[in-house]
Amino acid sequence: MSRLWDKGEPLDERVLRYTAGEDHNLDARLVRYDVRASIAHAEMLHEQGYLSDEDCRAIVDGLSTLLEQFDAGEWSITLEDEDAHTALENRLTALVGDAGARVHLGRSRNDQVLVALRLFLLDASDAVVASVEGLVASLQGLAAEQGDVELPGTTHMQHAMPSTVGLWCGAYEEAFADGIAGLRASRRRADKNPLGSAAGYGAPGLSIDRESTTRKLGFSETQSPVTAVQLSRGKAESTLLFELALVMQDLGRLASDLMLYYTQEYSYIDLPSTVTTGSSIMPQKRNPDVLELVRGAAGSVLACLNECLMIASKLPSGFQRDLQRVKPPLFRAIDLTIDSVDVMAYLLSGVTFNPDRITMSDELYATGKAYELVAKEGIPFREAYRRIAKQYAES
Amino acid sequence: MSRLWDKGEPLDERVLRYTAGEDHNLDARLVRYDVRASIAHAEMLHEQGYLSDEDCRAIVDGLSTLLEQFDAGEWSITLEDEDAHTALENRLTALVGDAGARVHLGRSRNDQVLVALRLFLLDASDAVVASVEGLVASLQGLAAEQGDVELPGTTHMQHAMPSTVGLWCGAYEEAFADGIAGLRASRRRADKNPLGSAAGYGAPGLSIDRESTTRKLGFSETQSPVTAVQLSRGKAESTLLFELALVMQDLGRLASDLMLYYTQEYSYIDLPSTVTTGSSIMPQKRNPDVLELVRGAAGSVLACLNECLMIASKLPSGFQRDLQRVKPPLFRAIDLTIDSVDVMAYLLSGVTFNPDRITMSDELYATGKAYELVAKEGIPFREAYRRIAKQYAES
Amino acid sequence: MSRLWDKGEPLDERVLRYTAGEDHNLDARLVRYDVRASIAHAEMLHEQGYLSDEDCRAIVDGLSTLLEQFDAGEWSITLEDEDAHTALENRLTALVGDAGARVHLGRSRNDQVLVALRLFLLDASDAVVASVEGLVASLQGLAAEQGDVELPGTTHMQHAMPSTVGLWCGAYEEAFADGIAGLRASRRRADKNPLGSAAGYGAPGLSIDRESTTRKLGFSETQSPVTAVQLSRGKAESTLLFELALVMQDLGRLASDLMLYYTQEYSYIDLPSTVTTGSSIMPQKRNPDVLELVRGAAGSVLACLNECLMIASKLPSGFQRDLQRVKPPLFRAIDLTIDSVDVMAYLLSGVTFNPDRITMSDELYATGKAYELVAKEGIPFREAYRRIAKQYAES
Amino acid sequence: MSRLWDKGEPLDERVLRYTAGEDHNLDARLVRYDVRASIAHAEMLHEQGYLSDEDCRAIVDGLSTLLEQFDAGEWSITLEDEDAHTALENRLTALVGDAGARVHLGRSRNDQVLVALRLFLLDASDAVVASVEGLVASLQGLAAEQGDVELPGTTHMQHAMPSTVGLWCGAYEEAFADGIAGLRASRRRADKNPLGSAAGYGAPGLSIDRESTTRKLGFSETQSPVTAVQLSRGKAESTLLFELALVMQDLGRLASDLMLYYTQEYSYIDLPSTVTTGSSIMPQKRNPDVLELVRGAAGSVLACLNECLMIASKLPSGFQRDLQRVKPPLFRAIDLTIDSVDVMAYLLSGVTFNPDRITMSDELYATGKAYELVAKEGIPFREAYRRIAKQYAES
Repeated sequence: MSRLWDKGEPLDERVLRYTAGEDHNLDARLVRYDVRASIAHAEMLHEQGYLSDEDCRAIVDGLSTLLEQFDAGEWSITLEDEDAHTALENRLTALVGDAGARVHLGRSRNDQVLVALRLFLLDASDAVVASVEGLVASLQGLAAEQGDVELPGTTHMQHAMPSTVGLWCGAYEEAFADGIAGLRASRRRADKNPLGSAAGYGAPGLSIDRESTTRKLGFSETQSPVTAVQLSRGKAESTLLFELALVMQDLGRLASDLMLYYTQEYSYIDLPSTVTTGSSIMPQKRNPDVLELVRGAAGSVLACLNECLMIASKLPSGFQRDLQRVKPPLFRAIDLTIDSVDVMAYLLSGVTFNPDRITMSDELYATGKAYELVAKEGIPFREAYRRIAKQYAES
Repeated sequence: MSRLWDKGEPLDERVLRYTAGEDHNLDARLVRYDVRASIAHAEMLHEQGYLSDEDCRAIVDGLSTLLEQFDAGEWSITLEDEDAHTALENRLTALVGDAGARVHLGRSRNDQVLVALRLFLLDASDAVVASVEGLVASLQGLAAEQGDVELPGTTHMQHAMPSTVGLWCGAYEEAFADGIAGLRASRRRADKNPLGSAAGYGAPGLSIDRESTTRKLGFSETQSPVTAVQLSRGKAESTLLFELALVMQDLGRLASDLMLYYTQEYSYIDLPSTVTTGSSIMPQKRNPDVLELVRGAAGSVLACLNECLMIASKLPSGFQRDLQRVKPPLFRAIDLTIDSVDVMAYLLSGVTFNPDRITMSDELYATGKAYELVAKEGIPFREAYRRIAKQYAES
Repeated sequence: MSRLWDKGEPLDERVLRYTAGEDHNLDARLVRYDVRASIAHAEMLHEQGYLSDEDCRAIVDGLSTLLEQFDAGEWSITLEDEDAHTALENRLTALVGDAGARVHLGRSRNDQVLVALRLFLLDASDAVVASVEGLVASLQGLAAEQGDVELPGTTHMQHAMPSTVGLWCGAYEEAFADGIAGLRASRRRADKNPLGSAAGYGAPGLSIDRESTTRKLGFSETQSPVTAVQLSRGKAESTLLFELALVMQDLGRLASDLMLYYTQEYSYIDLPSTVTTGSSIMPQKRNPDVLELVRGAAGSVLACLNECLMIASKLPSGFQRDLQRVKPPLFRAIDLTIDSVDVMAYLLSGVTFNPDRITMSDELYATGKAYELVAKEGIPFREAYRRIAKQYAES
Repeated sequence: MSRLWDKGEPLDERVLRYTAGEDHNLDARLVRYDVRASIAHAEMLHEQGYLSDEDCRAIVDGLSTLLEQFDAGEWSITLEDEDAHTALENRLTALVGDAGARVHLGRSRNDQVLVALRLFLLDASDAVVASVEGLVASLQGLAAEQGDVELPGTTHMQHAMPSTVGLWCGAYEEAFADGIAGLRASRRRADKNPLGSAAGYGAPGLSIDRESTTRKLGFSETQSPVTAVQLSRGKAESTLLFELALVMQDLGRLASDLMLYYTQEYSYIDLPSTVTTGSSIMPQKRNPDVLELVRGAAGSVLACLNECLMIASKLPSGFQRDLQRVKPPLFRAIDLTIDSVDVMAYLLSGVTFNPDRITMSDELYATGKAYELVAKEGIPFREAYRRIAKQYAES
């Protein structure tokens, strides 16, 4: 945007743009999920006698066609469409006529948004897990090849006790395995079918079979009562975001370690030139920009979690449009996490430790010596500790 | 503190106070957990041949005595003690002599802090669950007694479709049941035994049986490798804090609903005088302060989650003292959540809905009428929608 | 993005994309500022004898031409360019040859980024001020036309004392005037010239006249020493973001008031149909989506402040690439604030209060009656308070 | 609290404790400010003819006596008092009788809380400024004594260009001087007299001279209209908290630098034993705990800012009790900032740089060599850059 806060646009268009927000762009990734859910909904309407065979078939085929066309780039969601759901219903009606106007019976855009988001969340958590598994594999590869290299184990960033590259990798492997377990557990809140709650109060007078869409869409349960659905908005999203924040926290800490190891003073590691960059002014520089950007990304993902939680806070129950604002931080955080994890997995595969530059200082063995004293002389640990401490203080 | 930022204190005392922080107060709730973990550690040392029968018995009995005395208020942790762990070891050595100086073999204050915190977290999540169960019971009681009262269901804070007090209660029951499921799931990260990792690099030269303490303390698994333990600090805490934040989010939203219902304009509900307060200037006022404070508390608990996540972010691996700062927000959030949930359960038991004051406006039935049209005339929903919309626009 | 986390892209391209991030898109708004700063830098180099007359003129004319072409849409920043600064230097060298390769003497991309961002921040705060002034004008218009309408003044969302639409508007006028004062004060941190600090350590051996570029660019001071420049990154940004967060907090509270007033139960106000939207399922609905989205936007802007502060936290001094991540939340927050303020100014101009629907309950006058008692009978206020309270309790 | 979430307490006491919160402890620091404001209010009432000479004198003397007694520890605020304001009014009436019951005419606890908090904020920002000035002096002392020591200047944590301890100190001096300027500017929002706004709607029928209390209390302006006062709650607090967060951000970054310099690999500095601590298990350790705790404290203070902003967000206008929750994070952040700044000033006075251990690598001079080439041969900088880069790549 090089026009600086230009006010040329008519006010009503600005209101439309304000309410639609980025949905017409963001919702591209929801199209396939809305199609799946709409087909399940149509088939259930058919089962319940609200749709004729032909209408149901027209809807199912129409939606499948629209998804193919969308994937082929033949149409996209425009600002005028507002969002994926309106875009699909309008295009469906244009494509198959009358039948399209029948698909919205017994549902609301509110439960449509939710069902699409939840199906998306289930896929998204899988995608993050797949990335993190790649990172764990990268750590395992590093441990397998260079795991025996000795490393000062530190506490307080001070030499503490002897460690190895293998132990260092192992800490992060456990952390990311724990992250994967957390990501999988985060699915629980997304795995509840909202369809049939309509605007949050069901469909009075209609006979909607919520269990049917639950089965068709593979959800673990039907969320009920109907009023629970809208109240829960943002919670499945926050739960995934929290797990992303933890993964990014570990990733940022891994980046911190590597940046330390890459300083001239440590020189523990070399990085391949493919993951370092130069300087516009200093001809000699090879900078670990990737690591810095990963470290910074942890803050960005945590901010997304905050944003999601703040948007839902204090709202009276019943759907509130504020919740539309949850999508941008959700999508941002997922993309940024996957990109960061993948780039780190790639970087790790190129890290080389320099055993020659890593000094295992004498003090790393002090605790071991105290343990030896205990073993040899049978004295209490505290006495051994004091004797060794005295030796070090005098040296 | 009425002395305003007085600088009278000697600098070295201020350094001590700065590094010890609030630990000597906060750690009161960790004493029992440190005792349990220290006994398990001593028994394991005994099994491994590092402690004689008498020494082990002296330690176990000594620690049990110290806990009894602590519970009886006979001693407390002082600033000079720094924390629960030092306080116990020093008092143990004073009480049982030499044996006390042997208990620290093969462990570090770092894994001691962690094991005590994790045992505490497991109890704390149970305590929060118990409170939330009380709240759910309160909601169920309200639904049982007044569930049939009709209520306008709203979206966008606008009359949408007919609802009832029962459906309104049901939404929150589901939300808090989901919260309980989340709290239980949050135990996973606390349920890993850190003992035996010592300062994060194990106990070189000693034969420590980590599985033994895992069994004795009832943990589900032994966290390994040893380097994983310190890297994971703050994550079990954050996971509980996140679930607390979600419970408080729902609680804040419940408070928002009730405050709306309690306005003169709504007058949906009455509150008993035990949960309202007066004004210093306006003689007529009965204010729902409890509800406002609950709504505000949601922000405070969310800030605790933020604090915990920010403290751990970007830190190089290996123990870092920064992590001590996780305890205050953790304890604050647990206490504030339990207090808020309990006060709300109590308040709910006194809420009375006023059916006479609740107007079910005609427009609440518009969707139902559209559904009727569809059923009666077989027209597409979109057409029925447009016809009913026209009726309302003209009225 | 309908390709779901596709990994088709070669890894090195992903590294480039990861490090360049969104800069090639985001930097569009920095082009004009980099041109201004580069011209000032070139003229200073010329004054100091490092650039010939012709080279200086070639650079100045070249940059001006590039800006015109950019504004005309003839070129844009590509991913390969990485950012505005590289794009401009490369295009300048292509356009004017050798002279272009001379412009980078004595500066670094680091101080270039900073100077462009600071010039941008000064304009951005002006743009936000202009929007907020429009909002204040809208509030003043509302007060002028409907200010005499009586309104129950509330505390704790309960009727407290008599108020008016004028007093209600006045509160927000003061709030936004205070916001404008804060926005203006926030310029202080942006109003320091970073140019000449180069990568943060000056230009050893060169004679750079930093005061000259300070004058040319209209900065209030030259930031020194050179090492202070990079350490300050993110602080001018955070300071603006904090003020945006306060403006949005007030705006969100204004939205909360209006949503309350727009409920069926209050019915204090009507909103024009241009700022309300319909429902996909409920034919009768007119929803205040704009207000909800404004309320939600307050959380999004606050998250941007958080993000900015978290990115800079704990970093060792000297430039760190993490700081690149400050731009997205900065730009997002500015745009969202301006859009929200503008849409609210527009909405306010269409608000109509319904005096007929606003009930001034008797209890609003209780405090006034107590004051009357004090005046008439000379009794202490506390006694008057108790007597009036008794009357209300009995009624 | 060693009783684990005991529920023994009667419910009504728990409601009282919940609503009073920590006010009876926190408000100790507000007593002096409430006394000052109450005296100004009483004198104004006297000027306006609402208080007789004797009553006014009784109130003024009574309040002064109560403050002396409070400072002498003769009374404190109890849970039953709820807060400082009630405690003072009750004790005043007990002390001087009838006159005490007259002091509350024309004010509310709401504006009393606000005026006391604002007077406190003005003092608190001064106290923080005084601490930060001490830190700046400490940095200047370090620069004066060891400023000539050479230091590698870094970007991306990589050797970049030559620097010195003096330049390093200078960066932080500028940062903290900027912090002081920010702290002073933050006073603007606290420097508005709220007195006379009462509960937010003035004192109908009374003739209150708000300008008089503004003059007496030294405020720069009278906040008006009366409705603006409660709407502004939390903003002066947030503004101070934001500046504290920036000071702590710089302090945390200073701590990060020093921890890096203190690693065995850097060994740039020594720290005196008074600011380092030992390990419970490793006899040789000297840990920079103070620095770690300062780094962690930055996150805690930022969380306080978040908490304050979240508490006020989305609230309808008019006083809301939620705002009581702003005090704990406000007080916590002020105390933690002052403690952290002071401990850091003390630590800095003991830092010794080791020139012998600091290696100025050859690459630090690459940019200088490129500049020399430009100067000597008149070639464009880009060409010089490429030639020097080639030299380094080959070496």
